[in-house]
Amino acid sequence: MTVQYLFEVLGTAFFAISGALAANKKSTPDWFGVTFIGFITAIGGGSLRDVLLGSYPIVWVKDVYFIYAILVGTVLASIFYKTLHKLRKTLFLFDTLGIALFTIVGTEKALSLGAGPETAAMMGMFSAVMGGVLRDMLTQEVPIIFHKEIYATACLAGALLYLMLHYFGISRNINFWLSGSLIVAIRILAVRYNLSLPKFRRQTV
Amino acid sequence: MTVQYLFEVLGTAFFAISGALAANKKSTPDWFGVTFIGFITAIGGGSLRDVLLGSYPIVWVKDVYFIYAILVGTVLASIFYKTLHKLRKTLFLFDTLGIALFTIVGTEKALSLGAGPETAAMMGMFSAVMGGVLRDMLTQEVPIIFHKEIYATACLAGALLYLMLHYFGISRNINFWLSGSLIVAIRILAVRYNLSLPKFRRQTV
Amino acid sequence: MTVQYLFEVLGTAFFAISGALAANKKSTPDWFGVTFIGFITAIGGGSLRDVLLGSYPIVWVKDVYFIYAILVGTVLASIFYKTLHKLRKTLFLFDTLGIALFTIVGTEKALSLGAGPETAAMMGMFSAVMGGVLRDMLTQEVPIIFHKEIYATACLAGALLYLMLHYFGISRNINFWLSGSLIVAIRILAVRYNLSLPKFRRQTV
Repeated sequence: MTVQYLFEVLGTAFFAISGALAANKKSTPDWFGVTFIGFITAIGGGSLRDVLLGSYPIVWVKDVYFIYAILVGTVLASIFYKTLHKLRKTLFLFDTLGIALFTIVGTEKALSLGAGPETAAMMGMFSAVMGGVLRDMLTQEVPIIFHKEIYATACLAGALLYLMLHYFGISRNINFWLSGSLIVAIRILAVRYNLSLPKFRRQTV
Repeated sequence: MTVQYLFEVLGTAFFAISGALAANKKSTPDWFGVTFIGFITAIGGGSLRDVLLGSYPIVWVKDVYFIYAILVGTVLASIFYKTLHKLRKTLFLFDTLGIALFTIVGTEKALSLGAGPETAAMMGMFSAVMGGVLRDMLTQEVPIIFHKEIYATACLAGALLYLMLHYFGISRNINFWLSGSLIVAIRILAVRYNLSLPKFRRQTV
Repeated sequence: MTVQYLFEVLGTAFFAISGALAANKKSTPDWFGVTFIGFITAIGGGSLRDVLLGSYPIVWVKDVYFIYAILVGTVLASIFYKTLHKLRKTLFLFDTLGIALFTIVGTEKALSLGAGPETAAMMGMFSAVMGGVLRDMLTQEVPIIFHKEIYATACLAGALLYLMLHYFGISRNINFWLSGSLIVAIRILAVRYNLSLPKFRRQTV
């Protein structure tokens, strides 16, 4: 469990970094604004999950280390801004590990609170992507899940695999790695081959 | 009660359809994006109501049929996209029945949880319109309630009538139909005669 | 306590006024839209705080006077629209008193519910500024906290001072006035000398 906890805190810090970097694409908010956006990105998904499930105290209220992880993340983002922009591939990897981890953790949490599998899958995906959605709403960008290569769908696929293996009786640790790997694999393939889901509206119709 | 439950599930499916269709007006999100917007539109109002009232588990976490209703709604919206756009008048009727139903159900739920009449009226209106507001915030449109012919105000009027009749001792079933009909009637008149509330700012001042 | 309660209700009414006035800058929503935005501005911060802390019933559900205060505020805003725009300095003072009060009240509430100091400081700041952030998201403006002279940071500074003095054993009433005054002082100085925090991105890098 301690390894997973470490991952969670690291994942939170990383989401804060990606939030802080994204905050600068369009506008130039001040230090406070960047930190604020980093926070929202990092805690948004988990907070929404906990509030929808009525699971109190929500994770960062209970455990203050998440707040410190976010502060460290945004400070690092500001100090190593230049370097981090060069390390795009590394950042992509961290983001991918982050959403994979948050999806599985969110799905597990919903299950443990008695949610059905459909709700658990949604909560897993929400944990992973809603921080980014809130960030985009705050910074008036088109939400990430509407334009990026297969993103939230990868989370949903991982959550569904987790649930299937879970009901087949696969042990939790093996399931954790298998389902997480599916998310990472889909995401890497999607970006490498520039895959996106078919558009909804057929222009010719 | 079963009739009302059926209505609620149908109303949810319909909100999902209208959300999915609206998602296409401006941008062209992929299949996932459209389904996501359908979900937010359909569950947004009820979720906000339940979270504000602290009524856990919230409705679609407790009852998975709402999730399936939404999935069916968005799939129908994508398959019959062309036809549905021609059926605007039918869609309008469904939307109107949907907001009328959600308003009364939301008002009743708040009352049953001990809320005062003022809060209950707000919760009824929130149930009906906040899904659409969230959808518009996500898709970067001007929120529906700010530009449409008398819309949320019709819900508020219906909720207030329901509360008045409720305190006058009118039986619940009669009240349900009377108050719901008021909402439908206001909405139909508003669209037919293009009625909107007076603007707030007087330009000449 | 009655003085503070009076302040809170007044502060809520004032937030509603500022929300209703802000609603008119860009678009021209109808009466309902303006009242709606007034509500969101006034209750947004406190509602978010209560929901994140799981503190039910949330403040305006429990105490209907807050709803009436908001209604009075938006009606006043519409009647005295012209006058209020001339009284910008008075409005600024009320807004400043409002965010100072809400910050301290929010911080105290979080502490009393068992939150740690880091969380309490965030909740104090959220109480004060998130109503405005929600208003800006609804009206598609750049959120206030990203472009205004030192604003949310003043709240955060006040909350931190409150917490420091609290743990030093300073009596609550003295602490209330000292910390509140810090927020007011920072805000007045920031506006007078047009102070803002340094930008995050250094363009030359």
